[in-house]
Amino acid sequence: MKVIGVVDTTFARVDMGGAAIRALRSLGSGFRIVRRTVPGIKDLPVACRKLFQEEGADLILALGMPGKAEYDRMCAHEASQGLIQVGILEVKPIVEVFVFESEARDPKELDHLARRRTEEHAENAYLMLFHPDRLVERAGHGLRQGFTDAGPARA
Amino acid sequence: MKVIGVVDTTFARVDMGGAAIRALRSLGSGFRIVRRTVPGIKDLPVACRKLFQEEGADLILALGMPGKAEYDRMCAHEASQGLIQVGILEVKPIVEVFVFESEARDPKELDHLARRRTEEHAENAYLMLFHPDRLVERAGHGLRQGFTDAGPARA
Amino acid sequence: MKVIGVVDTTFARVDMGGAAIRALRSLGSGFRIVRRTVPGIKDLPVACRKLFQEEGADLILALGMPGKAEYDRMCAHEASQGLIQVGILEVKPIVEVFVFESEARDPKELDHLARRRTEEHAENAYLMLFHPDRLVERAGHGLRQGFTDAGPARA
Amino acid sequence: MKVIGVVDTTFARVDMGGAAIRALRSLGSGFRIVRRTVPGIKDLPVACRKLFQEEGADLILALGMPGKAEYDRMCAHEASQGLIQVGILEVKPIVEVFVFESEARDPKELDHLARRRTEEHAENAYLMLFHPDRLVERAGHGLRQGFTDAGPARA
Amino acid sequence: MKVIGVVDTTFARVDMGGAAIRALRSLGSGFRIVRRTVPGIKDLPVACRKLFQEEGADLILALGMPGKAEYDRMCAHEASQGLIQVGILEVKPIVEVFVFESEARDPKELDHLARRRTEEHAENAYLMLFHPDRLVERAGHGLRQGFTDAGPARA
Repeated sequence: MKVIGVVDTTFARVDMGGAAIRALRSLGSGFRIVRRTVPGIKDLPVACRKLFQEEGADLILALGMPGKAEYDRMCAHEASQGLIQVGILEVKPIVEVFVFESEARDPKELDHLARRRTEEHAENAYLMLFHPDRLVERAGHGLRQGFTDAGPARA
Repeated sequence: MKVIGVVDTTFARVDMGGAAIRALRSLGSGFRIVRRTVPGIKDLPVACRKLFQEEGADLILALGMPGKAEYDRMCAHEASQGLIQVGILEVKPIVEVFVFESEARDPKELDHLARRRTEEHAENAYLMLFHPDRLVERAGHGLRQGFTDAGPARA
Repeated sequence: MKVIGVVDTTFARVDMGGAAIRALRSLGSGFRIVRRTVPGIKDLPVACRKLFQEEGADLILALGMPGKAEYDRMCAHEASQGLIQVGILEVKPIVEVFVFESEARDPKELDHLARRRTEEHAENAYLMLFHPDRLVERAGHGLRQGFTDAGPARA
Repeated sequence: MKVIGVVDTTFARVDMGGAAIRALRSLGSGFRIVRRTVPGIKDLPVACRKLFQEEGADLILALGMPGKAEYDRMCAHEASQGLIQVGILEVKPIVEVFVFESEARDPKELDHLARRRTEEHAENAYLMLFHPDRLVERAGHGLRQGFTDAGPARA
Repeated sequence: MKVIGVVDTTFARVDMGGAAIRALRSLGSGFRIVRRTVPGIKDLPVACRKLFQEEGADLILALGMPGKAEYDRMCAHEASQGLIQVGILEVKPIVEVFVFESEARDPKELDHLARRRTEEHAENAYLMLFHPDRLVERAGHGLRQGFTDAGPARA
């Protein structure tokens, strides 16, 4: 039985953790989900390391929604570096799912984008844990999460 | 009995440490507070690690007020990266509370903003330690500290 | 028997992993190749560390194709820092092969550039493992991968 | 007997190490000073870690003077990150004293600023080691080193 | 007998490693030189750590020549952070010698600048290992490598 961690934030304007859990459950079984919520994206790295060490997580979905300001981009950068560092130290994957508020034109589009990207990354997480060979089959396919795929450079 | 660390700076123009301690005490009991003050925000990461190791802190509020110059933004970035790194190494949360001088129009607003953000993050810290499930209930609620909440994308 | 790791992404628009494997096989023998594919470039550092620890890789080619947006440049920066960190922690080389979509004018050129850079870096990887002295002979030669060499400043 | 390290550079245009030592000696006793000089600010982090490990330093003043160019700001950023990392790893404070050449209008002002900031940070270092409670008393006072204090937001 | 490592790149347009070795030999004896060449500056950190661990190097000269593009500045930043990190982890100095192509107007000037800066940093490296007190004597002298010294702020 694998353990998948799901960590999201109260700062986000969409319940990304809930969306991730629903998506994971629709993809298959053989895993248990542990969820945590922290205030903001800078709190994600420590929360992830705690899930790895205290709950034995095998992979974590780290979900966040940086705001529109220049400063929010810096926070996202800092959070990303921290998430990468935790993954390196634990030698276990963290799938970062960040949706910037500025990517959407209005709240409705933001809600849609956040859910869709979360769902598509939940599938990535599932494949990484249970079917890594299917990712090799998709190498170089120009896949995108939340938007239309770019596709391979030579169709 | 949990231990909450509070670290602030002499650089800040508001007694953020004092505000954090008052807010924590108003939220509940079951914890002991240890306070330190350092010159500037770049001194916060080491001070936090010392509090974790020497005082057995379970969580730390790291409080700072970067100035208005471009250089201050870089200092805040460096301090943030260090705080995240300490949290990762200790596997314990550091709640960063930074108030940029440029966020407020005048000293009075700055004072108000610094106190309010500190109080709201003190509540986050309290919930992280004692009631983590209440944070899960607030996932995706678009919460902000010191300003009006953005709210969920779908009201 | 040396082990060379090859890690690429589903985000890339060219099968860079396949190109790397073909190039490596054309260069010589004495090594075994292990391949992984992850969603995006930020997933490369952990995947590399896993290949070092679980497969005993001696060197890894980390292949990625950042998109055109400003944000993609930040992701590439974060991924690079993580790759350098993994190399440092494992004390084993990771040859980063990044091709930015914005380097090419159209999909055909992108495909060509990605393959050529991958092939030339595969040769670098091969020399690093088996003939490091040949790299010393080329010191200061102004070599470039995927484009025409700049050449030495004094011809 | 505490040990205070002082590290400065040949790149700086003011003898900041000498100024730090004079200032420390005027503040009190109960400590021994160990001094090192390195070429530039990027050499400070390793020099500090060596002083901690080889000389048993309890605190280090890291003194540098970045030049006027954009590139110098990047070097200062890299040096700062390294200094913070060393402090974190050793769990001992490093008081960074950087004076940017661009902060002063002419050499005379630069000399004055560098000396004054060094002296005021030497006092911070002294208080951190011997009288940490006096820093708590100054929390939120808007203190600045080398320039007039900003003062508290509410006088 | 001390061991000095020299690592340079095939990307550089000048044989900086050769220049460093000649300069070191002209400065004195009492040391053995170990040389490595890697493709680019991002490969320097791992190569340095390998020289420290496998060859027992006491100090390393890390030589590189970033290109003219914005992206090259980012690569240099990433390489620098990695070099600082390796120095910190090994507690041994790495003298970074980077010459940006954009610092010179033409290939001849580039060649001259690269050689001169390498030579002057080779002297720094020699002094750091064998005569650290001579660096203390030069503290605050405004020394520059490859260009005219800025000199002390007060002549």
